[in-house]
This record gives sequence, structure tokens and C-alpha cells, in this order.
Amino acid sequence: MEREVSIMQIEKSLNGVNVDRLIDTFTTVKEKPDVAKFKFKATNHWVNGGHNRTLIKDFYGACQTQTHKKPFNLEEDEPPVLLGEDKGANPVEYVLSALAGCLTTTLVYQAAVRGIKIDEIESTYEGDLDLRGFLGVSQEVRNGYNGIKVTFKIKADASEETLRELVELAQKRSPVFDIITNPVPVTVELESKQFLH
Amino acid sequence: MEREVSIMQIEKSLNGVNVDRLIDTFTTVKEKPDVAKFKFKATNHWVNGGHNRTLIKDFYGACQTQTHKKPFNLEEDEPPVLLGEDKGANPVEYVLSALAGCLTTTLVYQAAVRGIKIDEIESTYEGDLDLRGFLGVSQEVRNGYNGIKVTFKIKADASEETLRELVELAQKRSPVFDIITNPVPVTVELESKQFLH
Repeated sequence: MEREVSIMQIEKSLNGVNVDRLIDTFTTVKEKPDVAKFKFKATNHWVNGGHNRTLIKDFYGACQTQTHKKPFNLEEDEPPVLLGEDKGANPVEYVLSALAGCLTTTLVYQAAVRGIKIDEIESTYEGDLDLRGFLGVSQEVRNGYNGIKVTFKIKADASEETLRELVELAQKRSPVFDIITNPVPVTVELESKQFLH
Repeated sequence: MEREVSIMQIEKSLNGVNVDRLIDTFTTVKEKPDVAKFKFKATNHWVNGGHNRTLIKDFYGACQTQTHKKPFNLEEDEPPVLLGEDKGANPVEYVLSALAGCLTTTLVYQAAVRGIKIDEIESTYEGDLDLRGFLGVSQEVRNGYNGIKVTFKIKADASEETLRELVELAQKRSPVFDIITNPVPVTVELESKQFLH
């Protein structure tokens, strides 16, 4: 009996992903699209100079407010060459991290659904940015990345052809890949001069 | 003599930003555009399931490799409702943090150059995401955020009109605001099946 339970657990989970639950989620949102509506949230407080802190503690999803097991405080700062004190990675480095996490997770989940066991993934990110945009020195230069180059190394129980398909699928399905490669509308409002305490 | 040094320091720095160095940077990159060319870097390692870790340790800028005072390890995971173990904020939450840090820093630097003293800044971020994109359930739904709503509260020695101008300037100059609201080309390559150790 114990052996049977053990085998079932192995069948259900691959790459640390509960495949049955992933397929259940797929089926559920197909029938009830409202379950798929998520709203992610963050609150940022400026500390000093280029140093600020983002608090992530809850979000809305699967028709209810969801609270993280613990709140996450993400420190951001600029390095000395950009006039900061280097108390955290800077915002454009956070963008690379977001892209890295999302491509990797999407690839791992897609592999799990397809029954492909992954052993290791390492990926590197390089983003070219011309500071003349941020400084307003040139109108012909954009403020953000001109381009980002990503390289994946994957050790897995699969052919190179299959791994290439997984890397393609990761790009096709990754939320952050979409956010960076396509425009997202952002509205910014000033609530009031007075700070409410 | 001590008093004189103290007064000079107050004049040079505002909001924790060394204004003289910021103006120097502006002048330098106007004359030598190569100084403005930055390349930010990240390396990500998959841990398990939705859990992965991004290492940020150096970048290229101001014509040389720059090493952070210490390396930053950014943990990412998915919450249980998205089949993870909640060991870090998730990638789309990292996007909100990147946007928050960048808008805030851009606003603070712009205020410093204009001689506007900032006391406090709090900003909130809400991003709407339909999971049907990631799951591939619907082709009519995008994978990333449909939109992001940002609200700023600022306490500063300035009129509401001036603060509104600062919020506009932050959007106009922020690298991450540009990255999210406009397309960035991203190339993804698979280096080799074999993982090099």
C-alpha cells in the first residue's frame, strides 16, 4: 500500500511541479474564465537617493485575495557610478531577474506537462542601455533597453530538438517575455500632495 | 572651517542625490556618448518547480566593468495557488518592483536637479493578468499584464502642480517605464544540450 502511494506521487509530480494540479488548473480556467483573473500588487517606499523598497504581500487570484506565506521586501538601489550606495540591485537589473524567473518557470512547467525531466537550467541575460535616454541628453536614444540577449544551458533527459521546442514554448507563453517584448499600458496618478499617516 | 565644509555638502546633495555629480554625468555623456553605454547582466539558476534564483554581481558602464559592492541573490518562486512554495515574489511581481524602483528613483533624481526637496514617497502598483494566456487556454488573451495602475503619494516642499510635473517627468525619463510601455527586442538562444560544470 505504501509503495502504491509512492508511485502515484512520482507520477503526479515532475520537476517539482504537481502536474495533476497544473492540468486541473487548465481545465478549471477553461470552464470558469473568472478563476484566471489575477491582480498582482506592490507598494514601494522611497528610502533615500536611489534607494527604495518594494513590499509584496498579497494579490487577488482564483476568485479571492491570496496572502503570501511571508511578505517580501525587495531592496533596490543604484551602484556608485549611478550615484547610489549599492544597497540592492537596480530597477533595470530587476527587469532581467523578472525575465529570467519567468522564462525558466514557464519552461519547467511546460516540460513537466510534457513528461520531460529537467536536471539543471542556467540562463544568462545581457541588456544594453544607453544612459543618455535617462539623462535626457539625446532625444534619439530610448530610455530603456535597446535589446536583451538571453542564453539558456539545459541539462535534461531530452534531445536537443526537444529542448529547442521548450525554449520556444517558454517565449510563447511567458508573461514577462510578453510584458517586455510588447507594449503594456501603464497609468500613473498623483493621489494628493498630502501624505497620509 | 568645519562649518564651511558642512554647508558645501548640503548644497551639493539633495534627496540623497549628489547633484553636482549628476550634472557632471550629464555634461560628460553629452561630450563622450560612449560613457553612457551600459550593459546590465544577470545569471539565473533553476532550483525546483517555480523556484529559481538570479545572481546580479557586475555590469559594464562608464567604459569599464563595474562590480557591485556585494552580489545580489534574488529569489523567485510562485505562490501555492500557482503551484509553487512561495519562497520568493514571483516574476510578474518583480516587474512591479522594477517599475516602482525606477519611477521613484527617476522622480527623486529629477527633483534633486530642480532643487525640490522630497520628504516621503509611497507608490502602489496593480497589474491585471489573465492566467489563460500563460496556460495557453485562449489565443485571445495576452500572457502578460493587460495594464498596470500606479498611484503616487508624495510629501515634498513643492506645489501640487510641481509634483504633477515631477510625476510626468518620471514617466518620460524612466528606463523601466519605457521597457514596459514599449517593445524591447529579446533574443533567446539555447547554447548546448550539455551543461558545463
